[in-house]
Amino acid sequence: MPSDPRSIESRSFEIIETLLSGKGLNGPEKEVIKRAVHATADPDFADTIIFSQGSLSSGISAIASSCKIITDVNMLRAGISKNRPGGAEAICFVSDEDVRLSAGENGITRSVAGMRKAARLGLIDGSIVAIGNAPTALFEIMRLVREGARPALVVGVPVGFVGAAESKEALEGITEAPFITNRGVKGGTPVAAAIVNAIIKLVTSFPS
Amino acid sequence: MPSDPRSIESRSFEIIETLLSGKGLNGPEKEVIKRAVHATADPDFADTIIFSQGSLSSGISAIASSCKIITDVNMLRAGISKNRPGGAEAICFVSDEDVRLSAGENGITRSVAGMRKAARLGLIDGSIVAIGNAPTALFEIMRLVREGARPALVVGVPVGFVGAAESKEALEGITEAPFITNRGVKGGTPVAAAIVNAIIKLVTSFPS
Repeated sequence: MPSDPRSIESRSFEIIETLLSGKGLNGPEKEVIKRAVHATADPDFADTIIFSQGSLSSGISAIASSCKIITDVNMLRAGISKNRPGGAEAICFVSDEDVRLSAGENGITRSVAGMRKAARLGLIDGSIVAIGNAPTALFEIMRLVREGARPALVVGVPVGFVGAAESKEALEGITEAPFITNRGVKGGTPVAAAIVNAIIKLVTSFPS
Repeated sequence: MPSDPRSIESRSFEIIETLLSGKGLNGPEKEVIKRAVHATADPDFADTIIFSQGSLSSGISAIASSCKIITDVNMLRAGISKNRPGGAEAICFVSDEDVRLSAGENGITRSVAGMRKAARLGLIDGSIVAIGNAPTALFEIMRLVREGARPALVVGVPVGFVGAAESKEALEGITEAPFITNRGVKGGTPVAAAIVNAIIKLVTSFPS
């Protein structure tokens, strides 16, 4: 195998090009899908990732304007590229003491309590909300959207046997906010990070 | 779906029990495999995860003695449970300025340079080294082991089309250090985190 980072990545993308050929993918959507397949070595994502109308342009504009990126878990925050235009913040409240307490008192997950804190602080509107782990957090952001919150983009790709597929199916019914999601039980933090990082790369590779 | 965190988790593990039945899994190895399947919603891991002889006991003893956990990427460090006996440190050097410089100068990946820094600081012996992303870092830790480094456990489950499967195949040939790995291109940070966190849970659920 090649040992320098650029050759590894370019060889990987050559393999992915071959795997995706004939699937009729193109444009920036294809770049996002390629990054998700690269992150997981799972070509299934080429058939399961869904973009709502205009979602990618909305995400690109938001990143270009240095929007905040709100994540469900710290692992996802850590996976978001540091090369963010304008030093845009990546934020996760899940480990905050008040979030922990509120989750315990209300019998909700800490990631739901984290989303509520983001909403309380007025951080949702215009932000990218990325959820790779917790279906409960995705259901919560949908509730907030129905109540009037307006994220620039919801990247909702939680993983798991309980609630993940259902939460993503529900997201496909949302018309008030642009979203990128995937169908089925698979997903996860690396997929969410890959989608957000692909958008960042689309912006930083073609500066205005 | 249930909304409280404990019901979601216990329902998920019921489903996983069913998926894994008949595979002849048992004991602490089964607990580790269940966590990997839970993290990925991918039952394939039940057939592909490999434990070297005594690896799990070595990892359990190390965690019980509050060993350091050295990771290839920050995303993995962020995914390691905070409930570590004795406040054991989780360490990742990949973003350090000297590591970045050394990687650039030597044409190596930053995660390789990070492993070299850990070795230079004498941190490898007795630690758990967890690699979920970079095959180059896994090759480097094998080189360090051949030169005499003695980690308590190598969790080596990098993902990807270039080098990941080869690096894990090479790990299966290592006799000087205990390891947990998986076969094939799949793997990733959530799998590495799930394996380490399963070991932490095995220790903290049955305190001595």
